[in-house]
Amino acid sequence: MLEHIPRAEEIRSMDKNELDALAGEIRGFLLDKVSKKGGHLASNLGTVELTLALFRAFDPPKDKVIWDVGHQCYTWKLLSGREKGFDTLRDLGGMSGFPKRKESPYDVFNTGHSSTSVSAGLGMVRARDLTGGRYSVVSVIGDGSMTGGLAFEALNDAAQLKTNFIVILNDNTMSIAKNVGGMSRYLTGIRTAGGYNRIKLAVKRLLSRLPVIGENMIERISNAKDSIKEIVVPSGMFFENMGLTYLGPVDGHNVIQMEKAFRAARDLQKCVLIHVKTKKGKGYPPAERHPDAFHGVEPFDVRTGKPLKKAAGKSWSEVFGDFMAEKGKTEKKLIGITAAMSGNVGLRKFEFAFPKRFFDVGIAEQHAVTFAAGLAASGMKPVVAVFSSFLQRAYDEIVHDVCMQDLPVVFAVDRAGIVGRDGETHQGVFDLSYLGNIPNMTVMAPMNAEELREMLELALQLGHPAAVRYPRGTAPESFMDRHVPVVYGKAEVLHRGSGIALLSFGDMADIAEETRLKLLGEGKDATLVNMRFAKPLDEECLRDLAPDHHTFVTLENGVISGGAGEKAGAVISALAPGARLIHVGVPDLFVTHGNTDEVMRLLGMDADTIVKRINTTEK
Amino acid sequence: MLEHIPRAEEIRSMDKNELDALAGEIRGFLLDKVSKKGGHLASNLGTVELTLALFRAFDPPKDKVIWDVGHQCYTWKLLSGREKGFDTLRDLGGMSGFPKRKESPYDVFNTGHSSTSVSAGLGMVRARDLTGGRYSVVSVIGDGSMTGGLAFEALNDAAQLKTNFIVILNDNTMSIAKNVGGMSRYLTGIRTAGGYNRIKLAVKRLLSRLPVIGENMIERISNAKDSIKEIVVPSGMFFENMGLTYLGPVDGHNVIQMEKAFRAARDLQKCVLIHVKTKKGKGYPPAERHPDAFHGVEPFDVRTGKPLKKAAGKSWSEVFGDFMAEKGKTEKKLIGITAAMSGNVGLRKFEFAFPKRFFDVGIAEQHAVTFAAGLAASGMKPVVAVFSSFLQRAYDEIVHDVCMQDLPVVFAVDRAGIVGRDGETHQGVFDLSYLGNIPNMTVMAPMNAEELREMLELALQLGHPAAVRYPRGTAPESFMDRHVPVVYGKAEVLHRGSGIALLSFGDMADIAEETRLKLLGEGKDATLVNMRFAKPLDEECLRDLAPDHHTFVTLENGVISGGAGEKAGAVISALAPGARLIHVGVPDLFVTHGNTDEVMRLLGMDADTIVKRINTTEK
Repeated sequence: MLEHIPRAEEIRSMDKNELDALAGEIRGFLLDKVSKKGGHLASNLGTVELTLALFRAFDPPKDKVIWDVGHQCYTWKLLSGREKGFDTLRDLGGMSGFPKRKESPYDVFNTGHSSTSVSAGLGMVRARDLTGGRYSVVSVIGDGSMTGGLAFEALNDAAQLKTNFIVILNDNTMSIAKNVGGMSRYLTGIRTAGGYNRIKLAVKRLLSRLPVIGENMIERISNAKDSIKEIVVPSGMFFENMGLTYLGPVDGHNVIQMEKAFRAARDLQKCVLIHVKTKKGKGYPPAERHPDAFHGVEPFDVRTGKPLKKAAGKSWSEVFGDFMAEKGKTEKKLIGITAAMSGNVGLRKFEFAFPKRFFDVGIAEQHAVTFAAGLAASGMKPVVAVFSSFLQRAYDEIVHDVCMQDLPVVFAVDRAGIVGRDGETHQGVFDLSYLGNIPNMTVMAPMNAEELREMLELALQLGHPAAVRYPRGTAPESFMDRHVPVVYGKAEVLHRGSGIALLSFGDMADIAEETRLKLLGEGKDATLVNMRFAKPLDEECLRDLAPDHHTFVTLENGVISGGAGEKAGAVISALAPGARLIHVGVPDLFVTHGNTDEVMRLLGMDADTIVKRINTTEK
Repeated sequence: MLEHIPRAEEIRSMDKNELDALAGEIRGFLLDKVSKKGGHLASNLGTVELTLALFRAFDPPKDKVIWDVGHQCYTWKLLSGREKGFDTLRDLGGMSGFPKRKESPYDVFNTGHSSTSVSAGLGMVRARDLTGGRYSVVSVIGDGSMTGGLAFEALNDAAQLKTNFIVILNDNTMSIAKNVGGMSRYLTGIRTAGGYNRIKLAVKRLLSRLPVIGENMIERISNAKDSIKEIVVPSGMFFENMGLTYLGPVDGHNVIQMEKAFRAARDLQKCVLIHVKTKKGKGYPPAERHPDAFHGVEPFDVRTGKPLKKAAGKSWSEVFGDFMAEKGKTEKKLIGITAAMSGNVGLRKFEFAFPKRFFDVGIAEQHAVTFAAGLAASGMKPVVAVFSSFLQRAYDEIVHDVCMQDLPVVFAVDRAGIVGRDGETHQGVFDLSYLGNIPNMTVMAPMNAEELREMLELALQLGHPAAVRYPRGTAPESFMDRHVPVVYGKAEVLHRGSGIALLSFGDMADIAEETRLKLLGEGKDATLVNMRFAKPLDEECLRDLAPDHHTFVTLENGVISGGAGEKAGAVISALAPGARLIHVGVPDLFVTHGNTDEVMRLLGMDADTIVKRINTTEK
């Protein structure tokens, strides 16, 4: 199937039957490739017809199409001449799973994080108009991404446009898991209400609510409060109220209908929002039934939908989730907060056990953090579980709302470090740097499952802001046999040698131990320290090491610049003037996608390279 | 006037005339104090009656009131027992100009940045309900703050509430300068349309737009597009569509009317948005006429409205603004972007000269940055001018949308460093740390006006992301006579001595020179380097200094942790093992308000303290 990838002109000349057949073939192609390589499936199955309609109504790459988040761009990549790329999908050196300007002129803006497409598109619209360009700019954004404040900021600005800009709301009723909030309820209203019935109710509602200013109105509304929630809102008014023109809803699996809507929108001299309804996982029953399980997948058996490989052990996220579910039983003030990622961060058990103390705020990391600050200011013990790279969106809230008030919010920073095949937008490599420089913040990194539990426990008891950061994948059981309890601000000396000191932060412990053993094989008895705390650093421990070590090697799964190693280096330089410093971590570049081990070798974060650096005499 | 500060019970027992008299007395008090000490005036004059109504309808501090941004809380402070604080308003050790939990139990959440109050309030609501508390939570948010995405994220979440939460929209038609965007236009619609007329139009609009799905509808809307914009939207529908209950608009200078609205809202078991219309600067004619000029003020003559002291010279912001206005003439792709701060960042001249290339996106720093990325991706040369501490809100967008794509966006980072009397929320001390650790970013810091111009010029030619950071206040003319042109990545040696090297970043040059002269007086001929680039560091320059310097002193107007000095220190430790490092900058704490010079002395960032540290033999 799909032996021939049609060119845009061919797609434009197809009739409905041919389009349906093509869509089916594309789904087969995607299913085949993603089942082998892993990647985003459900979101991509949902946008096959949408992409075909874009190719029919527009003329890319002259017309610009920006995919929000970008995890739905596979058909786009396929139809823009990248079919071969699917054989190296998300491999090191292979095709990215997200839009990349360097890959193709069809990818006009890189995405990966949520809610950026309207801002970027508006920038392109303004540039087009200032330079006299004649092309369309189209931002495709999911209903989940619409809950991100950035999207609202952009729509608020776009509402002023007196020139064409097309925003396609790809409404699949979910973000990555289920969607939440007023916007979601609003869209559900549009989706479910019948046409005439809806308008009748809307009129009734308006007539029942004469906006007389002052107390009369207030009394009337007070009385009417119970009936108000029964009334369904009219189609598109939310967007129209903002000053956008609303078209829809349109069937997102009907290419012809979408094409007509897109063509109509092209001629309006303002910002047009086209509401397209799609089904996540469309065409593959297991993904239709469990779209969140098939959002991002490892290689799987197409017939059963089951992963080809079983997970090696408990993931860090699961260890965190189990801790929360257990702790919630005794700690009645414990609150779990996620930004549309309950399953991914491991909070499902907590969610089911303590639904009243679980909050999914939607794709809204900023709000998640300030909301947690409000809870903490009221005596609760909120834990914000979020991926490291997405937490970047809440940097100001961490500084301004949590740390400046010294509020006891706990950050469970998941996917901290190299994440592998999702690539540069998802690498969780900056958190040690951006969290480690904030006053009042404590930053911990566990080396195994037991330490994660103890650090979470300590964070909850601390009474100050605290972050615990851990990477993607399986939580190792290493060093569990000789465990020394976690004590605030204290490192753990795993092996005391001399000459060379390996200072390991968090999950780098295994690579540090491998390095130590290799050095031992060369007759060098290096010290190995599990640093545990990136902030505050255990200066006493470093002071103890200073007299009989000439080389200090810091190891962290994050950027070197401004990270934990540089900070330790500053302390060491003062304590042991002349000591040699080697920082292992991510250098000053954005890290590409690929198998995690391969990527870490590429970055020199493997034991062989570290040993080589240590043995190199010149600095 | 205002000889007696009434207690809450007294306020509650007052009639309309007494309330009006009290409001007048409070205005007189605020005008008197702010004219002497400086501070926020127009916003505070606008919220006198609102605050009185809050004290009548609610029972603080049992009931929680959160002031968004917080620059309107003076009456709140006055009526909660802090009248004496106004004599030390914004002094070092004195009363803050913003809400502070440490100051009073009436201040339940610290603010300073925009759009946080709804998130924080929602956290308090959830905490109240989980612990069985019985009190009201009220978030007061301005129409300007409503354009911030964080507020939208929070309202979207609050829309799900089945319990009481009160959001007061303090609509004064401006944020800090004029307000922008769809939300603003929408609110204007509510404010200006007459009651029955408005409802009639709304009904007509609905009836004319039967939501038949598909092409019929699309054609009809296409045709109707010109008429649609004429139609005024119905009151409050935007908020109602989100699932919030809307009450208003209410006269924000009528205490009794507001009190009734607040009391009515207390009993609704959901999130209620009360739309209150106020006038910024109310009661003081110069401030009513020019509310943005009287937003934040230095001490002034109440009779004339003129500042008591004339500015000493051109501010950094003015130098930047003049550069933009001049450069815009020849560089046709130059774009100026501000987040509701055109005047504050110096962009007014550019705005008037090139209105089509000037964009005020509202209080929406995230959107400002990603919008700029879209412009840059389309070949334009966008300059985002924003205060350092507010740019924190766009950290993820700088990483993900600008730097990851290596797009040539220029950041004019104003108020970078100690800002003085606004205090901790406004200190621009983190940017060297959070910008300096992002790949592809160049970070420059000028020491005088001429360098600022040259660095901006260089940033625009660079073709990569670049930030130029400069502080609040007057741009010094120091060192202008012996100027060496700015070259990419190169430091400037201002004086070559030996033994001690002073490595100064940006505006610390004057203090560094003062330090050098003091050392010279002691017979120590220290080297003085104007580092210019925080990223990349001029390693060659440091290599040159290594052989004949034993002490390296880094000076930066920002946090030491993860800042430019620590980075220089890492390079020096490698180049000159054993060299002594002294980092001058902001230690690991949040910096309080007060006169800038006093605050810098407190932090040890003055020449005397630096000399003392250099002369201390022990480390």
